[in-house]
Amino acid sequence: MVKFPLSQCRIVMVETTHSGNIGAAARAMKTMGLSQLHLVRPQGFPSVEATARASGAGDILQNVVVHDSLESALADVTWVFGASARQRTLPWPCVSARQFGAMVAEHPADGTVAVLFGREARGLTNEELQLCHYHVTIPTNEDYGVLNIGAAIQVICYELRMALLGTELPPLDGPTINLPAVHWDGPPVDQASMEYFMSHLEKVLVDARFLDPRYPAKVMPRLRRYFMRTQMDKAEMGMMRGALKAIERAMNKTDGGTV
Amino acid sequence: MVKFPLSQCRIVMVETTHSGNIGAAARAMKTMGLSQLHLVRPQGFPSVEATARASGAGDILQNVVVHDSLESALADVTWVFGASARQRTLPWPCVSARQFGAMVAEHPADGTVAVLFGREARGLTNEELQLCHYHVTIPTNEDYGVLNIGAAIQVICYELRMALLGTELPPLDGPTINLPAVHWDGPPVDQASMEYFMSHLEKVLVDARFLDPRYPAKVMPRLRRYFMRTQMDKAEMGMMRGALKAIERAMNKTDGGTV
Repeated sequence: MVKFPLSQCRIVMVETTHSGNIGAAARAMKTMGLSQLHLVRPQGFPSVEATARASGAGDILQNVVVHDSLESALADVTWVFGASARQRTLPWPCVSARQFGAMVAEHPADGTVAVLFGREARGLTNEELQLCHYHVTIPTNEDYGVLNIGAAIQVICYELRMALLGTELPPLDGPTINLPAVHWDGPPVDQASMEYFMSHLEKVLVDARFLDPRYPAKVMPRLRRYFMRTQMDKAEMGMMRGALKAIERAMNKTDGGTV
Repeated sequence: MVKFPLSQCRIVMVETTHSGNIGAAARAMKTMGLSQLHLVRPQGFPSVEATARASGAGDILQNVVVHDSLESALADVTWVFGASARQRTLPWPCVSARQFGAMVAEHPADGTVAVLFGREARGLTNEELQLCHYHVTIPTNEDYGVLNIGAAIQVICYELRMALLGTELPPLDGPTINLPAVHWDGPPVDQASMEYFMSHLEKVLVDARFLDPRYPAKVMPRLRRYFMRTQMDKAEMGMMRGALKAIERAMNKTDGGTV
């Protein structure tokens, strides 16, 4: 089954107060591959602030559609979601941002899906929320759940991209190294220990003339990459440091013998 | 198995240029339940701008730890991820934001996990990226993938919250209505048709004295909620409008008969 196309996802901002947030929304949308930004009665738009915050997403601002009414912004839309932080007097069917993505992926591909975002201070009115098929919410901290509107649009657009295009990274060239998750009895080392170890290793490898002391950075990053990837526990780190010390002693004894 | 606690996740911002972004980061973190914000050589912090952008997350700013070096910010950390938009000269193991969340969930619960974010304009240096066990990337639009740093921190913290606390919404009181996804042969109606229908329905129900014309809003939102939840296709809408018209004709005839 064909997934719903990102290009037919619309963000609708209702009576946005700070035009900088419109720029932030445009940038958030473009990074995730959305392009349809509709504004209902925006305040102070267009503005220098919006353009600055949009950064490389100026094309989205140029193609913005401004409406006098929310009904106009939704006229050709086939599925409407309203971003809402909380349940209202009349509870509406409400899904999480992740469930929302999965639902949109199944919508008929010739439709248009819109997500409404309300005013910075007050969100959407009850009447506006009742224009929606569903409400969508981003699960948040119970003590403080008020996302900045640009940040909320970033999360919603991110979930759309994940659901419609998939979450996998393109494979690197070459074979895959697969380290399965294992349950382990020893605690992992902290970064301070890791840095002592890397310095110690570098010193030993320079002393051993494995590393060119003028250009240790040619090889060390690859060794570091290996040791960082294979999380070491404290006992393993103890062994490694012990081994390095033993090698140092042995090398010094050899050097000492020639003096 | 106990999932890794959100309280032991740390955000580390390296040489942030615009202190407003530090405020945005604090707010993004608090909405997702994180609290450990560490700064390496920030510019112009603390500042009025940071406090303003933090909004209700001033406590996170007050508890910020400022460091002279990245090594100091990582000393007690057991797993280090570096936010990176692209592969560097020496490719490092790189996971997506979602894979990252799943990995952190499995980390030993007495550790500390840090995610590094670099400068707004240039990100992290190669040396800083090499202090990481893994790189983490947010999949983006190939044409424009530059998230605002506050927005990137919001997505990373969101994925941490989802992975460590789960994505499900708390259930509403009462029974569940489960509408399974179905493959359908008819296209869904758009919102303009839906609004014509709702107005038509309201008019018929007022005429029929089912609705009090002075207070139609007492019942209409519940009817709207029902019709919005059950996505209608165009053929179904045609039937509904036809039925309403027939009812209108029949009611007018009855009324007409009494004149």
